[in-house]
Amino acid sequence: MSEAGGITPRAQDFSAWYNEAVMRAELADYSPVRGCMVIRPNGYAIWELMQRALDDMFKATGHRNAYFPLLIPQSFLAKEAEHVEGFAPEVALVTHAGGRQLDEPLVIRPTSETIIYDSFARWIQSYRDLPLLINQWANIVRWEMRTRLFLRTTEFLWQEGHTAHADEADAEREVLRMLGVYRRFAEEWMALPVITGVKTDSEKFAGALRTYAIEGLMQDNKSLQAGTSHALGQNFAKAFGVQFQTAAGGLDYVWSTSWGVSTRLIGGLVMAHGDDVGIICPPKLAPTQVVVVPIYKSDTEKQAVLQITEGVGAELRAAGVRVELDLREGMKPGAKYYEWEGRGVPLRLEIGPKDVAKGQVFAARRTGGKLAIPLGSLTADVRLTLDGIQAGLLEAARVRREDNSRRGVTRDDLVAMMEGAGGGGFAYAGFCGAEACEEAVKEATKATVRVLPDEEFRSPTPPSRCVWCGNPATTEAVWAKAY
Amino acid sequence: MSEAGGITPRAQDFSAWYNEAVMRAELADYSPVRGCMVIRPNGYAIWELMQRALDDMFKATGHRNAYFPLLIPQSFLAKEAEHVEGFAPEVALVTHAGGRQLDEPLVIRPTSETIIYDSFARWIQSYRDLPLLINQWANIVRWEMRTRLFLRTTEFLWQEGHTAHADEADAEREVLRMLGVYRRFAEEWMALPVITGVKTDSEKFAGALRTYAIEGLMQDNKSLQAGTSHALGQNFAKAFGVQFQTAAGGLDYVWSTSWGVSTRLIGGLVMAHGDDVGIICPPKLAPTQVVVVPIYKSDTEKQAVLQITEGVGAELRAAGVRVELDLREGMKPGAKYYEWEGRGVPLRLEIGPKDVAKGQVFAARRTGGKLAIPLGSLTADVRLTLDGIQAGLLEAARVRREDNSRRGVTRDDLVAMMEGAGGGGFAYAGFCGAEACEEAVKEATKATVRVLPDEEFRSPTPPSRCVWCGNPATTEAVWAKAY
Repeated sequence: MSEAGGITPRAQDFSAWYNEAVMRAELADYSPVRGCMVIRPNGYAIWELMQRALDDMFKATGHRNAYFPLLIPQSFLAKEAEHVEGFAPEVALVTHAGGRQLDEPLVIRPTSETIIYDSFARWIQSYRDLPLLINQWANIVRWEMRTRLFLRTTEFLWQEGHTAHADEADAEREVLRMLGVYRRFAEEWMALPVITGVKTDSEKFAGALRTYAIEGLMQDNKSLQAGTSHALGQNFAKAFGVQFQTAAGGLDYVWSTSWGVSTRLIGGLVMAHGDDVGIICPPKLAPTQVVVVPIYKSDTEKQAVLQITEGVGAELRAAGVRVELDLREGMKPGAKYYEWEGRGVPLRLEIGPKDVAKGQVFAARRTGGKLAIPLGSLTADVRLTLDGIQAGLLEAARVRREDNSRRGVTRDDLVAMMEGAGGGGFAYAGFCGAEACEEAVKEATKATVRVLPDEEFRSPTPPSRCVWCGNPATTEAVWAKAY
Repeated sequence: MSEAGGITPRAQDFSAWYNEAVMRAELADYSPVRGCMVIRPNGYAIWELMQRALDDMFKATGHRNAYFPLLIPQSFLAKEAEHVEGFAPEVALVTHAGGRQLDEPLVIRPTSETIIYDSFARWIQSYRDLPLLINQWANIVRWEMRTRLFLRTTEFLWQEGHTAHADEADAEREVLRMLGVYRRFAEEWMALPVITGVKTDSEKFAGALRTYAIEGLMQDNKSLQAGTSHALGQNFAKAFGVQFQTAAGGLDYVWSTSWGVSTRLIGGLVMAHGDDVGIICPPKLAPTQVVVVPIYKSDTEKQAVLQITEGVGAELRAAGVRVELDLREGMKPGAKYYEWEGRGVPLRLEIGPKDVAKGQVFAARRTGGKLAIPLGSLTADVRLTLDGIQAGLLEAARVRREDNSRRGVTRDDLVAMMEGAGGGGFAYAGFCGAEACEEAVKEATKATVRVLPDEEFRSPTPPSRCVWCGNPATTEAVWAKAY
């Protein structure tokens, strides 16, 4: 890289590195309100690209967007017993409005199941109204004690899918379909390989029958829960009276699901790919995919170089590449490189007098490595290079994950793996299913069960004993420290 | 139209018609929270199209999106004296969160100037940081006493642009540029002709030097303020200490602007174009531009008709037309027509056995009139027809506005124009500038000054006397009853 990074190296203090990388890229800023953040234009542009990609995938699977109220009567939360127990401690309460005290306090949505089922009860009459497939893009408030930019904030942005189905099988298909959409998004767009599976009861969504999740391993060997998909059974339908006339003429409660991902994904992108210089954006989610920096000394050079620079910009833009020309005067190329590297722009093109003479541009990958690109094959070569960076990031993350995953882990292995600040990784081991063992492991190692992995991720030989108590294992589990 | 509308005619009770048209199109629903609404998928889809069009225009004029906290410390509002006076009575207050009382209550944003200027003060150091051009898409809460779906709700969705400039002239250019963007959006996308101008002091934004607005005349002859653009001067910069080093080396406060449009525009779209059957979507903002309804009796007919129907759908979809095929079984074509008309779909294509034989489809405009379209020129003819509907709606709205605008209005004229439930329209008349006259006119006629019109809209002969007091006029004003 062109200059010393100026931020704390990852190996020294990953947490400090993360904050500094986010600040250096100008993705976000602290706000005067405790635990809230300002998403700056560079960060919001990544979110817009994530939204667009996810929204297209939601629509392609038959979902439609809607918008439900921010404020929810406090009594609504209480209608589903586990739900209120899970969320009541985290809510922000509106007690006064329009200059007077409210008869009933309103909570700012910590999630929208309750207010949405109130509508579903009115919209759904018959089996012909099912499945009802709704998504909402919204802001959420949960009063968190310990916050981190993007990863855990009092207010965050997310999407929440809410669907209602005529039977359990159809609801389960939806839950798994959306888990698959999240996995595809993580891998194809974020270049983040994930494992999928179901959560234990202690980690599931408050009010759900089952919670499925995608989990990705970050560079500090901690796991990030990057998306969840919940089978809600008939719990909320019964709490809100969402009944429908069945095809057979009877009356039944709908089976429902909910699923969500949030601006936390931006934190995941940073932690999965950044280096000691700062963030690295996977090309498909890079607001600027290519920056072009002209290099010249004399006025004659300038004229020739700028002409090519403008042409390169126009050609790439016309081809749909997100390109910026850095034409700032009075700033050295090295200082420009430094700035764009900190923003994680995946590809930089340098154009100097020698390149003009040779009919080429000089390309530097943010992930390392340089190459000359002839102007004659500019668009094709830039596309290939971007695709290569995208694939390379995914492959590097996959290798890192495999290097830090162990199977058939024993109790001693688990303790050793998780030890110290650098310890972590995915530990595949047997689990007896007892909450007491989960608690004991957490106490001893800080690791929790991230998922009971889906078949594809399970070990060829299923573990026979619980990693902690040694009793017969009922399942394999992936243990890791988590965000 | 195919069947009796079933909703209250506009002439009988415009307000009832509006609610019923909105409900019939399933654009929105009432919510259990006072004054809040649920934006249903059909309504949200219009909002998404509006967002996309506006966002493209904002980005084309150099703005970038960001996101600022929902919750604002109460003390922030108080930093700008006029601002707090205007908004304090309408705010919702969070007093408890995370299970305990907050040290300082937080207000849910009624607009974001204060929280944004807190960031601007950190981001702006030098004239090189200017202009700073930011936009935010967000939800807003204002505790309104009398609410109407879309037009005035406790919570609504909007965009708010916030920009900072080195001098007053640059800020003024921005204010007028964005007013122009709003006007272009209203006319080219919503098919709503608007007049532009500046507000009187009594109608301006709390804390602004000047507020500009676009105003459109609805079918009940009331005016809808459809978008506003504010010159904020240095008021907020001084309140929040947003200073910058000037090019000359001095220190100055920035000049700032803000501008916004909201989901209220959806209400404007309904009131500008709907008829006694329900809403009519201008094609450019119609989530479904074309619906195709197959008509058949026998199985043989069905096979031939469905084959053409699928082909028509595929061709139009490939051409970028938003098309739906209504293939529902066991539902008569007339019932389908009725449903799609209520949703305001601008163009319906009917395909029956005779059409198949003739190699054509039969097209019915939602605005009236039918035509046969040969399959050979399907895409081109559909595009032309949609363009014609878009242009026709704009022209019809323009004619309605001109028919209901009067110039050189006297005091007696004004009273007569505004009289009764059906009374209204745009009254161009002289104004002395005294708040007392505005108050008196409002008292007597319910009309207010909508704008002091921009030059383009002023009468050829400027009025010499105030319409109310008869003193010399300082300006021409457009008076109307308003939403």
